[in-house]
Amino acid sequence: MRLRVGCAFEYDTAWATPAVMLVQPHPDNPSPVVQESWTAEPLLDSHEYRDSFDNRCRRFTLPSGTTTLRYDALVDISDEPDEVEPTATQFAVEDLPDDVLVYTLASRYCLSDALSATAWHLFGESPLGWARVQAVCDWLNQHIRYGLYSTPLTTAVDVYVAQGGMCRDFAHLAVTFCRALNIPARYVFGYMPDVSLPPPYPPMDFHAWFEVYLCGPQGGRWYTFDARFNRPLIGRIPIGHGRDAVDVAMMTTYGAAQFRQMTVWCDVVGDEHPPTLITSAPADCADTTAGQVIDRPAQ
Amino acid sequence: MRLRVGCAFEYDTAWATPAVMLVQPHPDNPSPVVQESWTAEPLLDSHEYRDSFDNRCRRFTLPSGTTTLRYDALVDISDEPDEVEPTATQFAVEDLPDDVLVYTLASRYCLSDALSATAWHLFGESPLGWARVQAVCDWLNQHIRYGLYSTPLTTAVDVYVAQGGMCRDFAHLAVTFCRALNIPARYVFGYMPDVSLPPPYPPMDFHAWFEVYLCGPQGGRWYTFDARFNRPLIGRIPIGHGRDAVDVAMMTTYGAAQFRQMTVWCDVVGDEHPPTLITSAPADCADTTAGQVIDRPAQ
Amino acid sequence: MRLRVGCAFEYDTAWATPAVMLVQPHPDNPSPVVQESWTAEPLLDSHEYRDSFDNRCRRFTLPSGTTTLRYDALVDISDEPDEVEPTATQFAVEDLPDDVLVYTLASRYCLSDALSATAWHLFGESPLGWARVQAVCDWLNQHIRYGLYSTPLTTAVDVYVAQGGMCRDFAHLAVTFCRALNIPARYVFGYMPDVSLPPPYPPMDFHAWFEVYLCGPQGGRWYTFDARFNRPLIGRIPIGHGRDAVDVAMMTTYGAAQFRQMTVWCDVVGDEHPPTLITSAPADCADTTAGQVIDRPAQ
Amino acid sequence: MRLRVGCAFEYDTAWATPAVMLVQPHPDNPSPVVQESWTAEPLLDSHEYRDSFDNRCRRFTLPSGTTTLRYDALVDISDEPDEVEPTATQFAVEDLPDDVLVYTLASRYCLSDALSATAWHLFGESPLGWARVQAVCDWLNQHIRYGLYSTPLTTAVDVYVAQGGMCRDFAHLAVTFCRALNIPARYVFGYMPDVSLPPPYPPMDFHAWFEVYLCGPQGGRWYTFDARFNRPLIGRIPIGHGRDAVDVAMMTTYGAAQFRQMTVWCDVVGDEHPPTLITSAPADCADTTAGQVIDRPAQ
Repeated sequence: MRLRVGCAFEYDTAWATPAVMLVQPHPDNPSPVVQESWTAEPLLDSHEYRDSFDNRCRRFTLPSGTTTLRYDALVDISDEPDEVEPTATQFAVEDLPDDVLVYTLASRYCLSDALSATAWHLFGESPLGWARVQAVCDWLNQHIRYGLYSTPLTTAVDVYVAQGGMCRDFAHLAVTFCRALNIPARYVFGYMPDVSLPPPYPPMDFHAWFEVYLCGPQGGRWYTFDARFNRPLIGRIPIGHGRDAVDVAMMTTYGAAQFRQMTVWCDVVGDEHPPTLITSAPADCADTTAGQVIDRPAQ
Repeated sequence: MRLRVGCAFEYDTAWATPAVMLVQPHPDNPSPVVQESWTAEPLLDSHEYRDSFDNRCRRFTLPSGTTTLRYDALVDISDEPDEVEPTATQFAVEDLPDDVLVYTLASRYCLSDALSATAWHLFGESPLGWARVQAVCDWLNQHIRYGLYSTPLTTAVDVYVAQGGMCRDFAHLAVTFCRALNIPARYVFGYMPDVSLPPPYPPMDFHAWFEVYLCGPQGGRWYTFDARFNRPLIGRIPIGHGRDAVDVAMMTTYGAAQFRQMTVWCDVVGDEHPPTLITSAPADCADTTAGQVIDRPAQ
Repeated sequence: MRLRVGCAFEYDTAWATPAVMLVQPHPDNPSPVVQESWTAEPLLDSHEYRDSFDNRCRRFTLPSGTTTLRYDALVDISDEPDEVEPTATQFAVEDLPDDVLVYTLASRYCLSDALSATAWHLFGESPLGWARVQAVCDWLNQHIRYGLYSTPLTTAVDVYVAQGGMCRDFAHLAVTFCRALNIPARYVFGYMPDVSLPPPYPPMDFHAWFEVYLCGPQGGRWYTFDARFNRPLIGRIPIGHGRDAVDVAMMTTYGAAQFRQMTVWCDVVGDEHPPTLITSAPADCADTTAGQVIDRPAQ
Repeated sequence: MRLRVGCAFEYDTAWATPAVMLVQPHPDNPSPVVQESWTAEPLLDSHEYRDSFDNRCRRFTLPSGTTTLRYDALVDISDEPDEVEPTATQFAVEDLPDDVLVYTLASRYCLSDALSATAWHLFGESPLGWARVQAVCDWLNQHIRYGLYSTPLTTAVDVYVAQGGMCRDFAHLAVTFCRALNIPARYVFGYMPDVSLPPPYPPMDFHAWFEVYLCGPQGGRWYTFDARFNRPLIGRIPIGHGRDAVDVAMMTTYGAAQFRQMTVWCDVVGDEHPPTLITSAPADCADTTAGQVIDRPAQ
């Protein structure tokens, strides 16, 4: 199935403002990117680099005035839903690969140290491996209200206490519990068309979910989980992953750039509908992205 | 000047407990390690790996019972104090190397997003570059009381609010302010004999400080700063660096290992004095390390 | 000068919801209430009681459906601005009246224990008494940005860290610093027409400020301070005071009442202009009140 | 049964320090105080006042140097355990007495606003009244580890997240949940000999528990609950109650008084054993008291 995915952001700045944008699918994304373009209006120089998670970051400087940044791609996605592998087992910690250990540690939003006792209390009796991660997702799905407003400072502890949040917050709390349980977990951010529903597909948006490292039939690998929807979906296109949302901000601006509006699209080719328009009060999961915009006074 | 440095840790565990230990000098350490040994009693298998910061992590499994882990090395240190380069300038953000950008982001303990307004209010008027980092150190030295008890959950915001902490907390808050000001900063942990004092040298300990990325006469590099002591010292031997203390825990145990006692030494060869013995109520800077021990129920 | 002050609130509820409303001027208010009415549509039973701060609380049960609550009064205010008494001295703690001591303690939003070191660091050198309280107000006025969104959970520590807030937050942080400095301080909420400006007066709103207990020419009494505006104003009509905003919520509903809209008026008689209409996204200082609405699931 | 109860505190101060001490049984205590004495060495003037909760506060100024404060009383306690009244019902909010409403609001340590969703999620299905309060106590008893170190800044949210605390923390979290559920609840602090055990009684200490306002056979009254021990005990002698521990600090010093040591006794007359000696690292429940000492720099 061929999807057209992309987004356009509009910013106003009073002076030249360096920025990094992360909207291009991750190179490990199994869905081939058939064609893509990244453009800016007015024209500006940019270069792509890979961060330590191999995310494809685009770096440039916003000129003063209004700038529109636009990414557009054709992606051939599988029509298979997220893999479900209930027999995947949990690695004993001593058997985890060295480079995976970092995903058992606490991070900015995933305070697995603070919620350690809670995690063991809630999930310490559930079967190890896939079932334990599923128990985490089930718990979140039942206990955390979707839609509670959160801020760029909201941590997994805040989400746990308030019992509510956006998709980003669901992912953070799920990652936190998994790490506390010694299951390596990382945060993922991407396009999520959900073509598991019949067409015409609803307007879509960016979304956040998470992955855990388990031992499947072919050995260790990362498996997709989604505590927000808590069912296999079709069509995820991961853009970035990292320890948590800090590492995959859709846009990081070093200075006082005004975020004006964002448009996102993700359509089956031949079935386009008007793209989702999101302005400064982002609806639904858009907080995943707008919330991560980091405005710093320019120097 | 040749130093003998090292440490011995004693742990009790009820069952086999995987662990990672970080006590060996960092490979980028300019002071040559002449000789070193890492031993355990009882004997156990271990292997060394480099994490993403190139820290030399040693990984093994503590058997049930009492285990003593011991690292001992001879290191030839320079007798030059920390470099002072007041002419080092600050990179415009757009000129920073790609791989340095991550050190402008918030992390578990360094909540540069939360303290952004404060950082700009306090330091936004100070001259850019070396002087601005020095202004951060001066402020901490004047405002933060050394010795206030902190916990493994204490963030830079907590330190700022309580106006007190240990060396680890000084480093976290300084890093936080620098990042908020768009100056890349990382946390460093190591041996700190302070041989700038006349012998006999006082008993020493582990210590935490920080580094910032500035543009010196030969271009961009990391410079050492120490908000706790706030003066150039002789003899730092960095063990690890990272985004914050999460990345350089001296010891990470995955299970309920009991930390019994720690001994640290760092002496000029020919001038040995009894090593510092630190037990479960660590004095001075030892919290840098004991505080980072992460105990997780074993699985 | 005769003012017409009042407000109207509109609520929707799915079932009968007990509530307490606090909008009537405090009995200690020096400005005589010439005439007042409290009405509800549809009609409902209510009674007035005095809480432990002598605030005039009105208690009733919202029926299911839409209810409009309306308070309207004529008040003769003095045309004198807030009293300025720079010679007022600070009581030694041992000389404070017994019943004033409680205003030196921490409360829900005023974490004077957490900010004790900060308060002494910032203000410990300023002259005692009136000048010290003024120093607190000056500091807030210079350091805290007015207008930063806060929530019903925002404490004085949060305001201090974020360096921003609404009028309620200014009052909380000022009270916090004063208490940490052993100066009794309480939170005040009321109508604030600011008739110190020439007519026609701007639309007004509820406002929050604070009072401290100092020793003036006639002995101990409460003096008005306002860290938000930081200059003497004419026309304050206090509604309630307490330890902090918890004690003077304009409306407390025990159940899921939907706050639809609020209208506030405060006009010089003969100079009425259209009342301020505030809906679910309250502007300016209205957060003082809407923010304090406490929704609890009905039982 | 006649008990001898009391305590002695030793303080060092560098200069005269005002203080308030709360160690005398509350006047509503049903156990008659047969005889009591409050003494200080060196001698000093003091007076007793009743705060707004009718707690018997003793106010004085510590001279510079070392002072020992001593309270000793004979109290005739009932040998009946805490009343258990499972038929006590919960008041509809609209039927609560006006002056009880304040105990449904959040306070410094009891953040019932922050934990509202959690409280309803955990307890919203349990039967109303006595059974619901008992469900709260049962949950705490099963989920919160007794003995986790807490600080004078630890709130009910912190206790909930860490799943551990001291008796003071158990009381705070239980009060918090009850208030979120619209059940008026207050914090109580007192002597707790626990003579329900056979003699010789163990050394005892101060203790903290809580009370809720329910409708019993004779109408509305406060009932005792204890989430820490979670069973009826014999011999509680309440000293003070309030919104939370802020209101019943055993000792509040306005200045840098050094707390040297504390001795507590509570013995059946004729069965005295050596009093409990508690120094600056208070064991068990003593944090209830020492933790509440508020040290403020003297003015």
